[in-house]
Order: sequence, then C-alpha cells, then structure tokens
Amino acid sequence: MGDTIVAVATAWAPAAIGIVRISGPNALPLILTYWRGKPPRPRYAHFGAIHDENGTLLDQVILTYFPAPFSSTGEEVVEVACHGSLYILRRLVELLIAKGARLARPGEFTLRAYLNRKLSLDQAEAVADLIQARSAVAHRLALSQLTGKYYERVRQLRAQLIDLLALIELELDFSEEDVEFASRAQLEQLLESLRREIEGLLHSYRIGQAVREGIPVAIVGRPNAGKSTLLNALLAEERAIVSEIPGTTRDTVEERLVLGGYELRLIDTAGLRENPSDAIEAEGIRRAREKLRHAFLVLYVFDAAQESLAQAQAHAKLLLGMPPYPPILWVANKVDLLPALPIELQTHAIPIAAKERKGIDNLERIITEKIGEMGVDSEILLSHTRHYESFLRAKEAVEAALRLLREKGGSEILAEELRLAQAAIGEITGEITPDEVLGHIFSKFCIGK
Amino acid sequence: MGDTIVAVATAWAPAAIGIVRISGPNALPLILTYWRGKPPRPRYAHFGAIHDENGTLLDQVILTYFPAPFSSTGEEVVEVACHGSLYILRRLVELLIAKGARLARPGEFTLRAYLNRKLSLDQAEAVADLIQARSAVAHRLALSQLTGKYYERVRQLRAQLIDLLALIELELDFSEEDVEFASRAQLEQLLESLRREIEGLLHSYRIGQAVREGIPVAIVGRPNAGKSTLLNALLAEERAIVSEIPGTTRDTVEERLVLGGYELRLIDTAGLRENPSDAIEAEGIRRAREKLRHAFLVLYVFDAAQESLAQAQAHAKLLLGMPPYPPILWVANKVDLLPALPIELQTHAIPIAAKERKGIDNLERIITEKIGEMGVDSEILLSHTRHYESFLRAKEAVEAALRLLREKGGSEILAEELRLAQAAIGEITGEITPDEVLGHIFSKFCIGK
Repeated sequence: MGDTIVAVATAWAPAAIGIVRISGPNALPLILTYWRGKPPRPRYAHFGAIHDENGTLLDQVILTYFPAPFSSTGEEVVEVACHGSLYILRRLVELLIAKGARLARPGEFTLRAYLNRKLSLDQAEAVADLIQARSAVAHRLALSQLTGKYYERVRQLRAQLIDLLALIELELDFSEEDVEFASRAQLEQLLESLRREIEGLLHSYRIGQAVREGIPVAIVGRPNAGKSTLLNALLAEERAIVSEIPGTTRDTVEERLVLGGYELRLIDTAGLRENPSDAIEAEGIRRAREKLRHAFLVLYVFDAAQESLAQAQAHAKLLLGMPPYPPILWVANKVDLLPALPIELQTHAIPIAAKERKGIDNLERIITEKIGEMGVDSEILLSHTRHYESFLRAKEAVEAALRLLREKGGSEILAEELRLAQAAIGEITGEITPDEVLGHIFSKFCIGK
Repeated sequence: MGDTIVAVATAWAPAAIGIVRISGPNALPLILTYWRGKPPRPRYAHFGAIHDENGTLLDQVILTYFPAPFSSTGEEVVEVACHGSLYILRRLVELLIAKGARLARPGEFTLRAYLNRKLSLDQAEAVADLIQARSAVAHRLALSQLTGKYYERVRQLRAQLIDLLALIELELDFSEEDVEFASRAQLEQLLESLRREIEGLLHSYRIGQAVREGIPVAIVGRPNAGKSTLLNALLAEERAIVSEIPGTTRDTVEERLVLGGYELRLIDTAGLRENPSDAIEAEGIRRAREKLRHAFLVLYVFDAAQESLAQAQAHAKLLLGMPPYPPILWVANKVDLLPALPIELQTHAIPIAAKERKGIDNLERIITEKIGEMGVDSEILLSHTRHYESFLRAKEAVEAALRLLREKGGSEILAEELRLAQAAIGEITGEITPDEVLGHIFSKFCIGK
C-alpha cells in the first residue's frame, strides 16, 4: 500500500471537465515533474499547465493538492482537472505511470480511505452504492450508511455483545470462587432482545436489497389486455421528466422505471399462460410463477371492455396458480370504451386508458403509496449480502448461546459463542476483517474510486 | 447574459467524481442556500455537505469558489465536486434551478468566457476541438489554437490589412490635394504577399479538417486479398494498446483507428468492382471511386501467393479507374505462403501476413511516415469550415483590390475591398462578429462547457 496510485476519477467520455486523481506518498513530487505553475499550496485551486516529458504542452489545468492526512484517502492526494478529452486524460495517466505511479485497482482509493480509518468498511461499501443509486430511496439508504447511521446501529449491537462477553469473562477469571456476576435470567433477557433485533435486521434484507437493486414489480394479464401499452405509458412519463435535463440516459439492459422516488425493476412474466399444451410449456409456466412470487407488487391488467372485475379475478387465478401471491393491484384498462364506469371498478380497481395515457398519474400514485407501506423508506435496512451473512452467523451464535443458558451450559462455551457473534458483526464495519473480505468488497468498485 | 447558469461539467455516467458548475452573479449565494460548511474562501477546496430544501443531506462534497474576474468564464463561478451519482448530480442541478439558476445552453460557459474576453472566438472553438481530440495531432492542433498560436497568425494578417487600409484612408482624407501616400507598386506587392499567405491557409484546410475529423485512408483490393484480415490486425494492435488503461472505449460508429499519433478514418470501398454487370453497378463503382479520390492514402492489398506485384498493379488500374489517385501503398499479403520473398516485394511493396499478424508493425510505421510527409504536423492549419469561408471571402476581397490597383481604380472602392477583407478575417477571432455567428458556434458544444 506504500505506492502511489493514479486513475481517471470522472466518467470515461468526452466532457467539459475530466479529473485525474493521484494518491500516495509521491503524489505531489510526481505531478510536479510535469507541472508549470506556482508551487501548490494546500487545497488551493491553481491554474497552470501540464507539459509532457519533452516539454510539449498537454493541457491547461486546475491543480489542487490535498495534503495527508486531511484528504479523501488520508494520504497525499493531488487532483488535476483537465479539459475532458479522453486523449488528454489517458496521456496524463500514462505520464504519471512512466514516472512510477501505478494504475489504481477498482475501489483502491476507497480501500485506502478505509485502511487509513477515514471510513468504516460499511461506509466504504456505501460509497459504491451511492454512485450507483438511481432513485431517491436507494440514494437515502446509501447515504445513511455512508454518514454512519447504519454503522452506529451495528456498532451498538456489537458493543452490547462485548459487554455481555466481558461479564462472562469476569466470571471465568473468578471461576474457582464459583460466583455468578450476571443473573442468568437477566442475561437471557438481554440475549433474547439482541436476537430479536438481529432478526429484524435480517428481515429487512429483502427490502434493502430491493431498494438497492430495484423493487421487483410484475405486470401480468391476458394477451391484448394492454400490458405493453401500460408499460410504455409508464416509461413515457418517466422519460418526459428525465429529459428535462439534457444528457440524461436510461439503462435499457432491463426494463427499469423510477417512480415517486422508487426504482422499479419490471419482472418478465412472458412465460405465463392459462393452459399449458405440453410438459415443456408447463415447466415454463412454473418458472414464470416462481419469479412472480419474488415481486413486491403485481399489476394485473385486464380489458374492462371485455370482462368484468370478477371475471378478471377468476382469470387471474388461472394465470397466477396457487397462492401465496404478492399484493395485487387490479388495473382496469380501456375504460374509455365503456359507456359508463361501473362502481366496482372505481372502488376495487384502478381504471385507466393506457393508450390515451389516461389514469396513469393516479395509477402511479397508488403504486407509490403501496410500496411506501412496505417499509422501504426506513433509513436502516440490510442491503448487502455480505452483511446478511454476517448477521446470520451472529444470530446462530446468539441462539446457541441462548440454548446454552437455558440448558445451564458452561460459561466457557457461552463466552465462545458470544465471541463468535461479536466477531461476525465486527466484520460488517471492518473492525474485524479477514483479508479476503477486503479483496472481495473493493473489486466491485469502479476504477478511480 | 446577466443570469446565473448551471450544468453538470463531467461526463454523464456513474463515476467516482461528478462536477456541477455554476457561473453568474448569483453563483455563490445560490449554492450557499444548500451548503453546510465553512464560508467559502476564494479558490479553496472546502469539504462540506449539500442539504436539500427540506434539510435532508444530499451529499458530502468538495466546493470551490472562483471569484470574478479570475475564473474560467470571467464571472463568479462555483464548482461542486460530488460523488459521481447521476441521481445526486441531477438533484443538485434541480435544486439550483429551483432557486433561480438556469440550465446552461451548450457551450454557454465558453461563450461567457469569450464575451468576458477570457478567450478569442477561435480559442473558444478550440476548446470544443480539444475535448473531442482523439489523436496526438488533433490534440496538438486544437491546443495550438487554444493557446493562441493560430490566433497570432490570423491577427497579424488582419493587422497588415488594417495598416494598408489606414494608408488608403489617409489619402482619401487628403483627396482634394490628390496626393498618393502609398506607392502603388509597393501596395500591390504587399497585397500580393497577403493573397499568397491566405491562399496557403486555404490550402491547409483539407489537411486541417482531416486532422480534426480523421485522415481518410482507403483499403482496396480484390475479393479474398485479405482486406478485412488486415483491418482487424490493425484494429487489434490499437485495442491492445488502448486496453492497457481500463475504461477506454472505442467509437464504433465508423471504422476509425489511431495510429502513430494520427487518427485514420477508413473509407468504405465496398462498391468497387472490376467489371460492372449493369448500369446500376456501374453507378456504384463511379461513386466508390469518387469517395476514394478524397483519401489521403490508399492501401492496395493483394494476395502475393496468387499474383505478382506487376499483376496487382494492373488489377489496381481496373479497380481504381482513371487517375488521379491518392498515393498508393502496395501491401503484399500472405507472403508466408511463398517459398521465398521476391526482391520486388521487398523494395516496391510492403510484405505482410495479416492472418499471422506479421509485418503489421512495419506497415504501420510506413503509413505513419507517409502521413507525416503530408504536412499534418504543422501547428497552424485551417480546420474549421467557418474559418475557411471567412478566408475565402478575404481572399476574394484582396483579389478584387489587386485588380483595382492594376486597373488604376479609385481609392474609395479599393478601401472598401480592404475593409471587407479585414472584417472577414476579424470574424475568425471574434473581433468582428455578427450575433448569428456566435449562436451557430456555441450550439455545437456539449452542455456544461
């Protein structure tokens, strides 16, 4: 870690500004070999020029020097804001590598911030989440993790375990005298409350992951009910909003939709049929239904000009198979073709005319409300598999400790279980961290972070 | 122009850092409504936070304040370096717009720099070129324009015209006395030298444009001679170099290739056939040959295992049609299949084995040399159509003035032609600029510049 690393920190496309970031003990001397300008004062934005090894001008730049330890990585850091030309950015990185800098690995700047105690491990992970966040809730979740709210909660849980452990260890030290410092009933109560708290966090994982990666929503219906017209109407609304600021692009790898601050991930239900004609189609239906069960919400679209709500609900049972289902919103499409709107569609369904883009605002409002009721707005949600696995191990150890307590087991094994539990939680914030965990976390970052 | 503008100045994709730039009289008060941190000192990189209108944290950022007039635009400027999340960048722009900032139009930051006399008009254009430059020569050309070398040359030309004009105008003031301050022979000599200089610049336009947009090169040959294998070999070399720095992407809209500091634009010669079978195909061949004539260089690829150099040259005539051709490099492919390499292929052709990637380095070296001989390395080249058109008008006016001199025309019309010539050149640097020229130039910029 003693070397000096360099990378382009802005996105890799031509733009007004592009930034090259250097971190490590030689950050300043390295850039000074190419710098024509005043000797950099700490944190002062200097205008000057970068010349290559032959003295040829590469670019006019703004250079800012952040001395250790008050920089983002805790090391010596220099940021060079160039004209955002890919040629210039690449050349500058090459020039610095030629003088002994090393191209940073993904996440290496943040890794160094962690190693220099600028960030805890869960905060470092939140940096990657924050950059990728596309919706208000995903952004808030990452930010609450980055600013330490989540860290505080996790740290408290671990501190409670360590307190309990200290009590047991004190007993062990005085074991010849056979005293009990902690009342077993009180211990059990404390452990049980910890178990419940960990279990609550484990339950929040499904929601946390959905917030981070998109909330799964299925649009289901019979052929020609208007599923894709509805999808296009929803996407068109979003596009209209998004395109107010030019330059915005949408991820088209999968159908995704930002709606009322939530990012929805639309589940492909193409395989759903009412009547399979053969075994292969039956297997396709089974799989589509399996995927559907992971949805947080189902939009069941039916053609209100063709069938009543009751008929639609009967058809839905055929399509969806046996319960349990996720919550279903009954979307009555093509209501503009009806002479009058039946009362049942007003009270138990959401009437729309997808093609005419009517009722879409109302549908969006109801979807947003429904999702809001699912607890996605909480600031403390488990959203990383790594954290989930640590808490799972912590829970198992706490449960083992509870069994030992109830069965009057020895203090030694009780202490060992508590040690396991606190170590598992310690891995989340990085207070206890095997090396391979670090490698795995930071490899998922983009270069330059 | 008195309002405050805002835009994202970095490329629009998730990254470690993204920058929002604000310029105008209210840049500082606007950002201060959302800023939680110390009052910004000029050009100091402050760590702090941006909170939204409800006091909710949006991001932890680095804020730098560049007071007028010592900023990039000459106005009050604030740059906010956020985590490079599209959500955060968009929200921050929206927050600033909500308080009265306006989303910047393309190139508006640079336009303001021009209006505040931070840059001449040709320098402002060079900023856009610099950002788009993909090769060393395109970069050098843009930079020489940005740093004023080109400006200096253009300014000198105009100054000479203005001097001449002043002389003629002095004569007009004393016209009753019928004196001649300038010797007509001397005037003619000066004007003729100016005409030659302008003509030289006009000639450099073909090269300057090629440097800026890619130097057109054609790969021609009979079917199965190995044209696409050669192309892939050339592209593979480039990719290998480029991919040393992760994150690099290649423009795939058109086949382009950066080679020895030059960007080559490969000309599609798919329509070339030896024998047209009907009128439609004959028309296709005529068009392909027409495109070919714009190439700076032709790589004629032939299968050395199937035909000799003389045979290849005979075939080439059939393919290329009547001269003139661009310079041709004779590329003898598949030489690995020959028992021995004929001397003529060593002296008059470039032997390669494209499939085995042999001889490619040598071919690249020769292409680079050839292009280098074409004057592309000059730092002063006309590269913009706008400048070309201005110089064309200037040349016409100078030529008209020369005719008047030779035909002993009146000083009034002579002065008028000189006035037209200097005004045309003045438009290039922006010393004389109608409004519509400005609008046209800056609309081609990206937002945030």
